[in-house]
Amino acid sequence: MADRKQEFVTHITPRNEDFSQWYTDVITQTGLCDYAPVRGCMIFRPYGYAIWERIQAEMDRRFKETGHENVYFPMLIPESLLLKEAEHVEGFAPEVAWVTQGGSEKLQERLAVRPTSETIFCAMFSKWVQTWRDLPMKYNQWCSVMRWEKATRPFLRTSEFLWQEGHTLHATPEEAQEETLQMLEIYRDVAESVLALPVYVGQKSEKEKFAGARATYSMEAMMQDGKALQAGTSHNFGTNFSEAYDIQFQNREGKLEHAYETSWGVSTRLIGAIIMTHGDERGLRLPPRIAPVQAVILPIASHKPGVTEACGKLFRELTEAGYRVKLDDRDTVSAGFKFNDWELKGVPVRLEVGPRDLENGVVTVFRRDLCEKTTLPLENLASRLGELLQEIQDELYRQARAFRDERTVEVHDMEELGKAVETGFARAMWCGEQACEDAIKERFNASSRNMPFDQERYRFGDRCVCCGKEARHVMYFAKAY
Amino acid sequence: MADRKQEFVTHITPRNEDFSQWYTDVITQTGLCDYAPVRGCMIFRPYGYAIWERIQAEMDRRFKETGHENVYFPMLIPESLLLKEAEHVEGFAPEVAWVTQGGSEKLQERLAVRPTSETIFCAMFSKWVQTWRDLPMKYNQWCSVMRWEKATRPFLRTSEFLWQEGHTLHATPEEAQEETLQMLEIYRDVAESVLALPVYVGQKSEKEKFAGARATYSMEAMMQDGKALQAGTSHNFGTNFSEAYDIQFQNREGKLEHAYETSWGVSTRLIGAIIMTHGDERGLRLPPRIAPVQAVILPIASHKPGVTEACGKLFRELTEAGYRVKLDDRDTVSAGFKFNDWELKGVPVRLEVGPRDLENGVVTVFRRDLCEKTTLPLENLASRLGELLQEIQDELYRQARAFRDERTVEVHDMEELGKAVETGFARAMWCGEQACEDAIKERFNASSRNMPFDQERYRFGDRCVCCGKEARHVMYFAKAY
Repeated sequence: MADRKQEFVTHITPRNEDFSQWYTDVITQTGLCDYAPVRGCMIFRPYGYAIWERIQAEMDRRFKETGHENVYFPMLIPESLLLKEAEHVEGFAPEVAWVTQGGSEKLQERLAVRPTSETIFCAMFSKWVQTWRDLPMKYNQWCSVMRWEKATRPFLRTSEFLWQEGHTLHATPEEAQEETLQMLEIYRDVAESVLALPVYVGQKSEKEKFAGARATYSMEAMMQDGKALQAGTSHNFGTNFSEAYDIQFQNREGKLEHAYETSWGVSTRLIGAIIMTHGDERGLRLPPRIAPVQAVILPIASHKPGVTEACGKLFRELTEAGYRVKLDDRDTVSAGFKFNDWELKGVPVRLEVGPRDLENGVVTVFRRDLCEKTTLPLENLASRLGELLQEIQDELYRQARAFRDERTVEVHDMEELGKAVETGFARAMWCGEQACEDAIKERFNASSRNMPFDQERYRFGDRCVCCGKEARHVMYFAKAY
Repeated sequence: MADRKQEFVTHITPRNEDFSQWYTDVITQTGLCDYAPVRGCMIFRPYGYAIWERIQAEMDRRFKETGHENVYFPMLIPESLLLKEAEHVEGFAPEVAWVTQGGSEKLQERLAVRPTSETIFCAMFSKWVQTWRDLPMKYNQWCSVMRWEKATRPFLRTSEFLWQEGHTLHATPEEAQEETLQMLEIYRDVAESVLALPVYVGQKSEKEKFAGARATYSMEAMMQDGKALQAGTSHNFGTNFSEAYDIQFQNREGKLEHAYETSWGVSTRLIGAIIMTHGDERGLRLPPRIAPVQAVILPIASHKPGVTEACGKLFRELTEAGYRVKLDDRDTVSAGFKFNDWELKGVPVRLEVGPRDLENGVVTVFRRDLCEKTTLPLENLASRLGELLQEIQDELYRQARAFRDERTVEVHDMEELGKAVETGFARAMWCGEQACEDAIKERFNASSRNMPFDQERYRFGDRCVCCGKEARHVMYFAKAY
């Protein structure tokens, strides 16, 4: 072993010292992403993109199981088309990137790089829909969108990001509402059961709803600095857009009627949520169901008889059993380097195989969630690994849930609210007026997040936390990303 | 049955009357796509996008099996970055769409909507690569690109299209060449074994190679009008780009060296190739391995006892066996309408189940490839269906291959060449000079396609078909899309 092995030199700023710097350290040092030589844009490197591919697969399967079909619409939208729904334009116009030139030709009309695609879906819906027999139309597309943001941050807010946008059209308002809530429930299910992100689901206020929507629903996750991250939204447009874009159908009674529309989306923001919910001082901690590598095998003293062979055999067994496994047989770095490296990358399980392990017929197992070492019999490890990964999945959710619940506080006055949003979410009674949202924003830099569906269950008073008038809703307030 | 059923009113122009109109009729009437309200852009509707999803899955699996990783790079590229490799700029500048405005702000530097991403990959490679240990880097991305085309046609040439672009970096020229040819071979494999498209693979001429490449390889398919469709390309850049973008690494001897680069891509053009290779007077004929629906079950006289139940049972059996099956139980259209509709859509197998079939314990089977009817035992249909689909897959390839081979002609002079490219490909001996390519283009509107790898096998003379000087290559010439 005369070779000089590479040293592990990564430094991650402690979370409680500077959470924002901790985040930057983690995303760059793990190779999830990099900054692009384009204002406000980022590069998804393989490790980051692999997480997105797994999120896509989980979502896409559920979309298809509920009867949605994938499509692809153009990324450029003529300005005149974008301008048809007034509220929508007002919401998006300030952050549109405009194509004004094609080759050497100056365009007669500016083209928006899509900030979202309601307008162009509407243009086609109005062409495709004639009668109730054509409904529902339930479409989704995976694409990137562009919003000219001033302050950007990888995964959380960038000029370009990846997402899916669902757009559906229905014959009745009831069906549209059912669709809106169904998709929110799919988002919640993926967030909680796959990404181990506990979320509050509920309805947005009038102030915070999507530009052009009748009602917006969201899921809100709490990051480790106590701030809220809006992790997915689902909108019921009613006939707002179908009136602006003339989407009419002949109903069963033969009368022309405007169709009812929804849209819903989640984005690569979810990767930011995973990092800021589960990460710790050593780096990422990835939930097993989303981890690109679920277990890494490290040969210890691989020059000793049997070690290399045992590791190779274990790798084949686990891979054949369907796990995402990596065998780290690099001989240019030390074992200590590898420990740090895979802990930084958040791989749920590390399996160390050395001469002593083999003597005892075991492997040394390191759980990233608890940072604890134990041993497991080498025989039949494939079946035990599945249970272990599920335990880790559950433990990450449990920890995040306990953290969030502890930092969600029922508040009775503005002072309590101000204190609560310093460390987490405030659950407050609210009159429903925007003036109170504005006052809370002004004083504490906190915004209304959403109103739980089961209002009766959470209601705890009858006066608005801000103005003291009659309270109409239970509302979560928090500082937000 | 008092209901008035919908009539089937589709008309498809015969291929020999107007092949171009036939193509337009087929793509619009099958619901593969639609024209977008944006110059030169198209909408991928569910049936068209589902074909793309299957092409993606087949390609992506092979990319990953050969050690490639998916990434995502920004769609906007600063003009200064695009300008660094001179040949490349010259090739792409005329067809770039430019973003010049972000929100209300006029940009200081124009941003290109990516026409391809070599330049921005290079910018990052130069940052990421230090030593030979970092190599190879083998990346791929699935995205859309924009090229401001004058004459457009759905799937074949549109301002925006979907594709994958692989970008790899290597420590030796040999490795880069191996990679270039490996990816071409993957393309050929998917084209021939999955899409049933026979292709000629080989090297492009200097004139026809990619802007900035040292060598470009392509696969060329023959459409039913005898024209060539370039269906995929793989480029070896040598150090062209790494010199322009300063991508250097320390080699094993400790010396700085420029890295060797490749790129390769296939696009939604492949869907156009499938349509124009396999389609007939009734519409599409989709190869079973790529068909979104492999078999459609049609209940005949479904009011008769047992029919509905038998169809439902068959549907469940076939679906559980892993086939992509559709049960068409619409009662608003006639059986004749359904026959036409599914033939138009190119579904490989139609299974008709009526009272008489049930009496005899059979289903009536319609093969779309041969337009022939037969019967098969209802029992164990699931296992027989697999063989049948494979037969159809093979038959479509066989037909396309026979068509292509018949229309590929060895030509000895310009007159023969001119005649050959009226109906197909000319295989010619060529001196290697661009002057002759230009003369052939000028006179017959035909271009050089590629040079087969196994030159010795195909060589049949020693004089250039055009100038009569010494021939250096066997080259395919054809009119092309």
